[in-house]
Amino acid sequence: MSVFDPECTSREVLEHATGRWGALVLASLADKPLRFAEVRRQVTGIGDRMLSQTLQRLHADGLVSRTEHSAIPPHVTYALTGIGAPIADRICELIDTIYQQLPAIVAHHYACTDTGSSSVAPDADAATAQAAVK
Amino acid sequence: MSVFDPECTSREVLEHATGRWGALVLASLADKPLRFAEVRRQVTGIGDRMLSQTLQRLHADGLVSRTEHSAIPPHVTYALTGIGAPIADRICELIDTIYQQLPAIVAHHYACTDTGSSSVAPDADAATAQAAVK
Repeated sequence: MSVFDPECTSREVLEHATGRWGALVLASLADKPLRFAEVRRQVTGIGDRMLSQTLQRLHADGLVSRTEHSAIPPHVTYALTGIGAPIADRICELIDTIYQQLPAIVAHHYACTDTGSSSVAPDADAATAQAAVK
Repeated sequence: MSVFDPECTSREVLEHATGRWGALVLASLADKPLRFAEVRRQVTGIGDRMLSQTLQRLHADGLVSRTEHSAIPPHVTYALTGIGAPIADRICELIDTIYQQLPAIVAHHYACTDTGSSSVAPDADAATAQAAVK
């Protein structure tokens, strides 16, 4: 069994922890517990229903806790659990790496727009250029 | 601009690099370049069209290169670029962390099944237990 096997729980958890919204919701909780509306405000564009489903999945996997506070007014906070915290850490590192690579990615987008094609990758371009020099 | 902003390129790249299949396709290329059919064999369950779309997106972001080999028979290989390699590394670390947490996640799934509910998270359980002791 491995993450590549659809029957393995790790694949299901990877899909929940990344997926369309999972990664952003986990990253939003990295600093401190948040209320539902606070997560929604941070993860711009997520709808109430989708956020509710995403939190439920992460909660069912044990990655996110849900705590009801009986203070006035009563409210609920969501937080990373001991299981979810190291997974959220890895997602934050992934996001940091994407930030680091962003100038190169944006340059690549522009280069593809300029040539009107993205059918040849940078490495292939370099190989073609080297072949032309030889 | 940040990954939480729908207008930021980093969010688009995060969605492509994780998404439903992106993370598995990037992880499959971590060791060595692969042909299309080799990626499909490794990422069990992915269809031809979905794999093609996923590779196109990762290629358009500059994360994956596509090289045509004129050997007989001619074939195409996909590989991580200099931009994609560190991002794939972070995804492999995320997968490793999920493997490490898997026993706890599976135990949590069983515990939720036993109680017939997943409405209270482990942390909340602990808090309730502590409150009951006090």
